[in-house]
Amino acid sequence: MRLWGGRFEQEPNALARAFSCSLPFDQRLWPYDLRASIAHARMLGRCGIVAQEEAEQIVKGLELVRQDLEEGRAAFDPTSEDIHTEIERLLSERIGALAGKLHTARSRNDQVATDMRLYLKDEASQVQELIAQLQDALLEQAGRNFDAILPGYTHLQRAQPVLLSHHLLAYFWMLERDYERLRDCISRADALPLGAAALAGTAFPINPQIVAEELGFSRLCDNSMDAVSDRDFVVEFLSFAALAMAHLSRLGEEIVLWSSQEFGFLRLSEEWCTGSSIMPHKRNPDVAELVRGKTGRVYGDLIGMLTVLKGLPLTYNRDLQEDKEALFDAADTLAASLQVSAKMLRSAEFVRERIAQACEDPLLLSTDAADYLAEKGLPFREAHELVGKIVSHCESKALSMRDLTLDQWKEFSPLIEDDLLERMSARFSVASKASHAGTSPQSLREQLERAKKLLAAKRTEP
Amino acid sequence: MRLWGGRFEQEPNALARAFSCSLPFDQRLWPYDLRASIAHARMLGRCGIVAQEEAEQIVKGLELVRQDLEEGRAAFDPTSEDIHTEIERLLSERIGALAGKLHTARSRNDQVATDMRLYLKDEASQVQELIAQLQDALLEQAGRNFDAILPGYTHLQRAQPVLLSHHLLAYFWMLERDYERLRDCISRADALPLGAAALAGTAFPINPQIVAEELGFSRLCDNSMDAVSDRDFVVEFLSFAALAMAHLSRLGEEIVLWSSQEFGFLRLSEEWCTGSSIMPHKRNPDVAELVRGKTGRVYGDLIGMLTVLKGLPLTYNRDLQEDKEALFDAADTLAASLQVSAKMLRSAEFVRERIAQACEDPLLLSTDAADYLAEKGLPFREAHELVGKIVSHCESKALSMRDLTLDQWKEFSPLIEDDLLERMSARFSVASKASHAGTSPQSLREQLERAKKLLAAKRTEP
Amino acid sequence: MRLWGGRFEQEPNALARAFSCSLPFDQRLWPYDLRASIAHARMLGRCGIVAQEEAEQIVKGLELVRQDLEEGRAAFDPTSEDIHTEIERLLSERIGALAGKLHTARSRNDQVATDMRLYLKDEASQVQELIAQLQDALLEQAGRNFDAILPGYTHLQRAQPVLLSHHLLAYFWMLERDYERLRDCISRADALPLGAAALAGTAFPINPQIVAEELGFSRLCDNSMDAVSDRDFVVEFLSFAALAMAHLSRLGEEIVLWSSQEFGFLRLSEEWCTGSSIMPHKRNPDVAELVRGKTGRVYGDLIGMLTVLKGLPLTYNRDLQEDKEALFDAADTLAASLQVSAKMLRSAEFVRERIAQACEDPLLLSTDAADYLAEKGLPFREAHELVGKIVSHCESKALSMRDLTLDQWKEFSPLIEDDLLERMSARFSVASKASHAGTSPQSLREQLERAKKLLAAKRTEP
Amino acid sequence: MRLWGGRFEQEPNALARAFSCSLPFDQRLWPYDLRASIAHARMLGRCGIVAQEEAEQIVKGLELVRQDLEEGRAAFDPTSEDIHTEIERLLSERIGALAGKLHTARSRNDQVATDMRLYLKDEASQVQELIAQLQDALLEQAGRNFDAILPGYTHLQRAQPVLLSHHLLAYFWMLERDYERLRDCISRADALPLGAAALAGTAFPINPQIVAEELGFSRLCDNSMDAVSDRDFVVEFLSFAALAMAHLSRLGEEIVLWSSQEFGFLRLSEEWCTGSSIMPHKRNPDVAELVRGKTGRVYGDLIGMLTVLKGLPLTYNRDLQEDKEALFDAADTLAASLQVSAKMLRSAEFVRERIAQACEDPLLLSTDAADYLAEKGLPFREAHELVGKIVSHCESKALSMRDLTLDQWKEFSPLIEDDLLERMSARFSVASKASHAGTSPQSLREQLERAKKLLAAKRTEP
Repeated sequence: MRLWGGRFEQEPNALARAFSCSLPFDQRLWPYDLRASIAHARMLGRCGIVAQEEAEQIVKGLELVRQDLEEGRAAFDPTSEDIHTEIERLLSERIGALAGKLHTARSRNDQVATDMRLYLKDEASQVQELIAQLQDALLEQAGRNFDAILPGYTHLQRAQPVLLSHHLLAYFWMLERDYERLRDCISRADALPLGAAALAGTAFPINPQIVAEELGFSRLCDNSMDAVSDRDFVVEFLSFAALAMAHLSRLGEEIVLWSSQEFGFLRLSEEWCTGSSIMPHKRNPDVAELVRGKTGRVYGDLIGMLTVLKGLPLTYNRDLQEDKEALFDAADTLAASLQVSAKMLRSAEFVRERIAQACEDPLLLSTDAADYLAEKGLPFREAHELVGKIVSHCESKALSMRDLTLDQWKEFSPLIEDDLLERMSARFSVASKASHAGTSPQSLREQLERAKKLLAAKRTEP
Repeated sequence: MRLWGGRFEQEPNALARAFSCSLPFDQRLWPYDLRASIAHARMLGRCGIVAQEEAEQIVKGLELVRQDLEEGRAAFDPTSEDIHTEIERLLSERIGALAGKLHTARSRNDQVATDMRLYLKDEASQVQELIAQLQDALLEQAGRNFDAILPGYTHLQRAQPVLLSHHLLAYFWMLERDYERLRDCISRADALPLGAAALAGTAFPINPQIVAEELGFSRLCDNSMDAVSDRDFVVEFLSFAALAMAHLSRLGEEIVLWSSQEFGFLRLSEEWCTGSSIMPHKRNPDVAELVRGKTGRVYGDLIGMLTVLKGLPLTYNRDLQEDKEALFDAADTLAASLQVSAKMLRSAEFVRERIAQACEDPLLLSTDAADYLAEKGLPFREAHELVGKIVSHCESKALSMRDLTLDQWKEFSPLIEDDLLERMSARFSVASKASHAGTSPQSLREQLERAKKLLAAKRTEP
Repeated sequence: MRLWGGRFEQEPNALARAFSCSLPFDQRLWPYDLRASIAHARMLGRCGIVAQEEAEQIVKGLELVRQDLEEGRAAFDPTSEDIHTEIERLLSERIGALAGKLHTARSRNDQVATDMRLYLKDEASQVQELIAQLQDALLEQAGRNFDAILPGYTHLQRAQPVLLSHHLLAYFWMLERDYERLRDCISRADALPLGAAALAGTAFPINPQIVAEELGFSRLCDNSMDAVSDRDFVVEFLSFAALAMAHLSRLGEEIVLWSSQEFGFLRLSEEWCTGSSIMPHKRNPDVAELVRGKTGRVYGDLIGMLTVLKGLPLTYNRDLQEDKEALFDAADTLAASLQVSAKMLRSAEFVRERIAQACEDPLLLSTDAADYLAEKGLPFREAHELVGKIVSHCESKALSMRDLTLDQWKEFSPLIEDDLLERMSARFSVASKASHAGTSPQSLREQLERAKKLLAAKRTEP
Repeated sequence: MRLWGGRFEQEPNALARAFSCSLPFDQRLWPYDLRASIAHARMLGRCGIVAQEEAEQIVKGLELVRQDLEEGRAAFDPTSEDIHTEIERLLSERIGALAGKLHTARSRNDQVATDMRLYLKDEASQVQELIAQLQDALLEQAGRNFDAILPGYTHLQRAQPVLLSHHLLAYFWMLERDYERLRDCISRADALPLGAAALAGTAFPINPQIVAEELGFSRLCDNSMDAVSDRDFVVEFLSFAALAMAHLSRLGEEIVLWSSQEFGFLRLSEEWCTGSSIMPHKRNPDVAELVRGKTGRVYGDLIGMLTVLKGLPLTYNRDLQEDKEALFDAADTLAASLQVSAKMLRSAEFVRERIAQACEDPLLLSTDAADYLAEKGLPFREAHELVGKIVSHCESKALSMRDLTLDQWKEFSPLIEDDLLERMSARFSVASKASHAGTSPQSLREQLERAKKLLAAKRTEP
């Protein structure tokens, strides 16, 4: 079936049809297409554009189509152009020529824009829940390992001791920003395009406000030409998803690193590992690798959609059909990546002894030594220089800084006193970082409190 | 000068230095680096971390450095690693070893994150103003051409008549969403990283709240490890900029199309055209083309930064240095593109006669004919089919639909009555699209009103 | 079935399995996996690694699996990890435990790399044929319209007259470079990875040369670690495909432009047009738009794969599994786009009268006037300036340059003589561009000749 | 100065000029622009298009301009549009109005395409040399560490022992493919566009073959419209560069990993490390990180240029000006990254003891155990399963596989005999991987030989 045969004498070429057919991927929009059609039909009736009884019959017909689809009784015709054509075809099988009144005062241009926004709002709220679940998993691990001390890294070089829970919470805040960005995206997508018709609006006395209310849109699009050519909400979702995947790829990378024999900080649960077809001992962190790798496809979805929009004149152009697979793929990928990351993380165990062992590296405390000297009045720049010399001295003597006696320390500077040595411990170092957002247990307790409140607030959102 | 010589015995390799040096591009951050350093120094004094008089001397020294830089008396040392090193070096030239106390309780990691956020907030507010100016130019042209009727296009095929001002306002709303996205981006970037130090926070009794207030940040970062490794605000700005450039590329494309001899709808002012070195008659819309072309580089900046972040473990890694050129390039490109688009548009003239001529195409009214039949009770799908046949009939007879007499019309359907012909005009068609967001003059007046209010509100924002 | 259960006590988590399963998309590799397995089994037998009869039984079993798959008798188990596991499982259903010998001296790491290269070589040679077909369609249209003159454009402004066939052949040469790039890509992909095993090579006395010969590889990979982690051939194909799509998007854009009412240069065959669900007159060039739009997804596939590779340590990492969907999608998209472009183009008609009309624009000849003056000895820069003034003069008087009498021309310069006017025709202008690669009919005949020879050579390639 | 004032009455708007000016970046093309202009002028003289003496004067004038530029005597006028305008202006300062004859029979469209190809060929041959130097550095390290055994990794999990030199040579082959791709790119770029003029060719009796010979092009472009709108060579270089950077990013990642305290396999020379402004002990591998990070900008350059081309109608459009910064940035970035990678690598030391220690991990030999059983006739799949059980057994008893006595081994399978234990060593394992491309010393010697020959061949290329 086609919705536009009148002026044509030839059937579409089979290749052309196959090339332009969107049914294989837009069929997942059917529940949204039905909901929007029902709301549209009701409005047509209430506004007297079709007779009230006709509207009721159309709505009833659409409800029957819904049941057919839900219960697998109706099948899509693969030669149909798209899901909109199919729904109208199925409706006409149910109620005959009257089905032809449904498309009054609308076009597929505003219809598909409406379907896509309904899908986005639905999908996005599920993604929000999955973000919250991963945040929750991070808080769980942070709680379980509250006071474990980990080497903090910059440049993948050991830098300063931090609380493992502090490290984990860094991801909480990345995800919190993702959550906010998604919320903003949803709110910007929350406008109804129906009523724009092909591009110019319609001469029928429609009332789009009624439709908006029934479909749960908080406002109407402001300009009909923009309404049918706007895919900003797709790009905004893809931008959000790309950055969220970047965050997950960082977590994935760390899980891979920590699971290596060299780090040995994390032991994934066996059910989240995969073996090798040739090497019997393997226990690979495939899921974390795949999350990292799948970042690429979401970046690709984003750049693909941006490319589509580049240089496109108003209003609707068929290029825009490419919005669907990009959006579906990114949403599915992100949702699955969030889900597996949360579950993999919850079931993993941090190997506390290996982590503790790594924290004995005395170089982690060089900054504390410099701070100590700065507190004693040496300009920090000089303190830094001096401790650098001590590090270099130890290295040239193959000594650990930990081996230096107090007297040896004192030789380097008269400012050094007996209280230095007690400060040369990872525990002391961590405890001292009591600044806001710092890694001391006290700061962390406050940070955890803030995080938990934010998470709880999500759960009670309307 | 280097800030980290102590433990090293060898100088950096000249190639290594040149490769990693950020001074050529980060020097534009100097005003932000100075502001942040002054606020940091004051705080160190107020918190007793350095003596009050020392703090005052440092602040005074920094003010002198600012004057030197503003008045071109100080020059950067090209062998220096970055702007932070340079500012400290210039300070030490002014106040000697005391300069070495400035870096107490901070690291370049939190310092550069602070500088970048200050830059972003500043730059973004200028971009907001430029968005508003382009919106204003669109409103100006919409006002000048309020009642001109233009063929509306879908698939670059003539579709239905619309008001030219309606078409122009479609861009207003795209830009309005851009504006909102930027506002959200600014608000998310509005948190102070200083205090995070290298990654762990600091043991010095700092008060970052004071610094935040002085620098105009509304809140503090929540986690020191996140604070130094977070470049979300860069990616979010780049995502915003990429989409804004996509919008400008669409406008650029239309300006190019409209300026072609075939369309002939728009005449750019000569001062916005360029000639050819060989073809004496040329009058090319180069600026519009360049806006369209520069979209590519901003997409590239975005994908470049996303690539940098992919798979990066916590916390700071030198890869992050790549944030600067991407951000600067995107911000500069977008700002310039907005500016030239606004001015080019304001000075252009729509060629009303050519546009009016194009609107005489009777096919623009085929939908009105179908709507007419639907109003008379024919299911829209059948009305559409019937008008399609009429179009096809005219085409096969080489007739314009406009040539059909009322009697000929009536032969196609008994539903057609005398009132059809008056409806077959672009003016009538446009006037009838009185739905919200539709293209009727009345709808457009309301739309313009909404647009003007939004624009006025921006101008009175704090 | 899993190929690695031994050291595991827990089953994989269902989510983990679903997330990492590649069967839904790698199942299309089954013919390549079978071919490679058969070649491998034969080699194991010939080298005495398994007994000759065992090898024969395995090969026979694999042939049966092939028949089962070809004839739809075998079904894949959706809980299996990948196609390699499935083939081994189906084999074991046929020949029992002996199937377990097939995986001797190989790993899935070298196996999948081999499958992918076999697929690529196969698919690429089909794409080569499709490129040749589009080149052929271009030559066909060029032949049909050999002497039609078209306005040539720069900046979408009319520039100089050219032969329509010359314009069409510009695409021939783009495609010729695409063809060459693909040939280079195939030749670089033409090395056998099997024998690399997991990463280190194998201790079994294999003979990979035999396998290479049977599978049609011209050489062996040089380094086993590279062999299992190298996806350069995927990236190279994606780069080729992205550029080829850029070319098709340019052609698509021109088809859209030329089909607009304003240009009116091209009339697509009805079977390559699509209508509107609301506007009965529409005849949209959807296929050309979709080709243009699908460029985005191929760019996305490329950037996705590049992202996957960024920063990946040696050797195989699960991230590499993401190579498949990107490659398949790009290959399918490009193949379909080439195919529809060729057929759409062949069945389209250039509207010669509209094109001829556009060529009457006298400004197309301004360069000829300047060249005329330069031939008479005026420095070209001055000739250009003078003709510019003439253009400007005509414009200010609302004259066409064509309206100028010879005397009026002569007033502008004493160098102008009676022979000027005959040169002021599109036909003369085109004929004069007799330089190599120029647009004169004579040059074009030579160009066509070169093109035809290249095309013929492809058809006779081995 | 402008090359196109004649038909204009207004000066370009200052903003328009600044926005479209390419001089700040295209000035680096001046040597190529001069070379091409000299060749063009000579040809004009030889073909009698300008008088022979005039041609000589122009050439002489251009030589003087070259000297002025080389010796810093000439300065570019920042208000000029581009380098072509500037060269003509400087020439006219030297030889007056005669300079105006230089632009006969050419346009900036074919001129800039020629300049870009000259630049590309030049730059690319330097990049080829830098690739060879990095290959040489890899061979040097491979030679220095010929027989060192390293754990080979898949999924960043220890997999099987390999020779360190084998691992290093994997990069040699990646670079070898990069080298080949660049050679193909150069050869495709090696065609002269001059003669295409604006787009149509020229009516002057030019001889482009002479120009091609003088400039070192091996052939002419085939179609003038393609010649001025083709930027394939830019995209092909960017694609090559993106993949080469992907390779360098993998090497960079490994250098970062190996330099971590946890791996400890590599010690960079101090002159290739950087310190921290706050942590005195730091010795960061910044250069390796930056190479990894700079991969992003080259990906961005590629996607930027692809975006520019998407949907661009023929022939030249100003969008194409965006080719320059993308190409320059990618070429500079890649050249610098190759150079620093080579030097950093040469001066680094592998920490043989740490590496050897890591190789004692007995799990690296599990595959050898399975191979052993397969050799004894057990189907490999069962052998794999059995060794998996042994691994699991050891783990549950907290045993190392190395601790198992021969008797304990034998309990697992009657196939195990006395010869097993001697095989359970990394040295034996490596030695056994004697397949082509495998990691045995013998295979590696052959591989090194092939590599050295390829490298030597480059050095003796013309």
